[in-house]
Amino acid sequence: MAKSPETEHPIKSFGWAAYDTSGVLSPFNFSRRATGENDVQFKVLYCGICHSDLHMLKNEWGNSKYPIVPGHEIVGVVTEVGSNVEKVKIGDKVGVGVLVGSCQKCENCTNDLEQYCPSHIATYSTTYYDGTTTYGGYSNLMVTDQHFVVRWPENLPAEAAPLLCAGITTYSPLKYFGLDKPGLNIGVVGLGGLGHMAVKFAKAFGCKVTVISTSVNKKDEAIERLGADSFLLSRDPEQLQAAASTLDGIIDTVSADHPILPLLNILKPHGKLVVVGAPPKPLELPVFPIIMGRKIVGGSIIGGMKETQEMLDFAAKHNIIPDVEIVAMDYVNTALERLLKSDVKYRFALDVGETLKAD
Amino acid sequence: MAKSPETEHPIKSFGWAAYDTSGVLSPFNFSRRATGENDVQFKVLYCGICHSDLHMLKNEWGNSKYPIVPGHEIVGVVTEVGSNVEKVKIGDKVGVGVLVGSCQKCENCTNDLEQYCPSHIATYSTTYYDGTTTYGGYSNLMVTDQHFVVRWPENLPAEAAPLLCAGITTYSPLKYFGLDKPGLNIGVVGLGGLGHMAVKFAKAFGCKVTVISTSVNKKDEAIERLGADSFLLSRDPEQLQAAASTLDGIIDTVSADHPILPLLNILKPHGKLVVVGAPPKPLELPVFPIIMGRKIVGGSIIGGMKETQEMLDFAAKHNIIPDVEIVAMDYVNTALERLLKSDVKYRFALDVGETLKAD
Repeated sequence: MAKSPETEHPIKSFGWAAYDTSGVLSPFNFSRRATGENDVQFKVLYCGICHSDLHMLKNEWGNSKYPIVPGHEIVGVVTEVGSNVEKVKIGDKVGVGVLVGSCQKCENCTNDLEQYCPSHIATYSTTYYDGTTTYGGYSNLMVTDQHFVVRWPENLPAEAAPLLCAGITTYSPLKYFGLDKPGLNIGVVGLGGLGHMAVKFAKAFGCKVTVISTSVNKKDEAIERLGADSFLLSRDPEQLQAAASTLDGIIDTVSADHPILPLLNILKPHGKLVVVGAPPKPLELPVFPIIMGRKIVGGSIIGGMKETQEMLDFAAKHNIIPDVEIVAMDYVNTALERLLKSDVKYRFALDVGETLKAD
Repeated sequence: MAKSPETEHPIKSFGWAAYDTSGVLSPFNFSRRATGENDVQFKVLYCGICHSDLHMLKNEWGNSKYPIVPGHEIVGVVTEVGSNVEKVKIGDKVGVGVLVGSCQKCENCTNDLEQYCPSHIATYSTTYYDGTTTYGGYSNLMVTDQHFVVRWPENLPAEAAPLLCAGITTYSPLKYFGLDKPGLNIGVVGLGGLGHMAVKFAKAFGCKVTVISTSVNKKDEAIERLGADSFLLSRDPEQLQAAASTLDGIIDTVSADHPILPLLNILKPHGKLVVVGAPPKPLELPVFPIIMGRKIVGGSIIGGMKETQEMLDFAAKHNIIPDVEIVAMDYVNTALERLLKSDVKYRFALDVGETLKAD
């Protein structure tokens, strides 16, 4: 019989978990493996609340393993390192994002694209190599293979933890699809956790940024708060017509079903629509606009470990910091409810270090 | 009142035209403009019958202007040149494809991408700069701006005219999307006029080619006749499963509605699905496969004039010649009926030079 989460490993740990598809979190005692020779153990300081935590908590993607300790935007301070670890030392700040394992042998892994490794291991609710379930950063400590630990730049605040998912998820496609060149016209659809990071990175790359939203209320915050150059109300046919063939690329962060034809129409020829949200239904992709303009629709998910470190160093250099609302651990269920209503600007960060108490 | 097609220009011309959405062709007397200083006049030798001729003849894309003289895969021999023409001389073989005009000033035109110029002029059924309608290659002669005339390589037979649409439509995306590297695994969906050219070009680039079809009957011809390396029956779940994540790119030439999820699944991570057919309904694009594998769906249409010349020179060098069934002008309606049933391997070429008679 499998051991219980509380006894299967030697290191006592605690956090908050959901036990069923209600998705409601409550305190949870479990355990972590002993720090192996390649492992980094760290005390969690902050953990971002990602929209995908909501999907996982309610098993909306069908692959959840309960109990779930969510959290994959994790920043902490190192408390122990294995004998082979040279990357960081005790007392250093570190980050862990969406991945804690991959085969490290396949073509993707050897090209620093661990996120596309067919056998990658997610930070929570996935079976690890030792057969136990992974638990995420809504918890007091983590023990993680050093390959999946990034160095946290000194001048980045620890509550900027959402860089580790929302940040890299938008940085990576801007780079891969060549949408990081000064002067390019970049659209960002949706102004949530991902969207606001896309605006910040695109601006830092020297692009002109248009925020595209169904809500006119977003106009002021897009331009005044986030520094976007312009705003496009996507329900307004006149604005869409005026914007026809003007954008080099679009990062579409919306995870609700929505039409993409208006987005294709505002791309220039050879423009690129990159989807990083995950609407449940297939997108309707009309063929003529992509053929007649040699346009593409692409997707992208997070980034590899090397690129994640690069993104953090870039963010530190250019002072790119997510807008977070810091909340206490026992506020997490309320925060999740508010997130479902997009009632946050733009990401919650759980102050795990100061507010998570042993039960 | 507008002049009649027969009298609006000084040069008498004749061909076959459709007068209404029946799409049935019959002899038609019209006229061509006098050879201007930048124009090339040529006697038509061969004209391919493209699948888009069928759509245009029946106004299935809603932009047909009757009477229509179709034909945009045209090879002929020069009979007169304007004073500024240095590209070709009387007696040279030349080709004209899908375009006979573009602004030559916009960003696309200055980048040799005339096909994406917003004001490009199609070879037939479009209003030319002088206000008259363009007529295509199902006719005895053409008068075309030299910029849209390509030199026909000496060792290419004139009946290889389908290179000018079917050829460039598959060559260009293989190049643009980086699917022209030796050793890449390339899929080709559909084995018609476009598909068979995609196989030939991909093989010439040194790729391994898999023909993907709903019809098992295509297997022998794909491998034995066209030299494809393998064949995949797209209705067979076991074959699809075995082929999962194996292809670097796919050229999808099918113009009927069809699912693309099976195609996305057989792409490797970072793989590219390029659509060059034009199904009437939007494609259903599921988001997870493109996000989880950083895959793209792109489109492409023909190629610019510079690339079309490059493609012809490449075809001449590598002996890449479309498989054509040569037919007489008065067989054209039967040929169109057979094309509608895909009853041709793989393209009809009208022997205009020898069989088109003045009425």
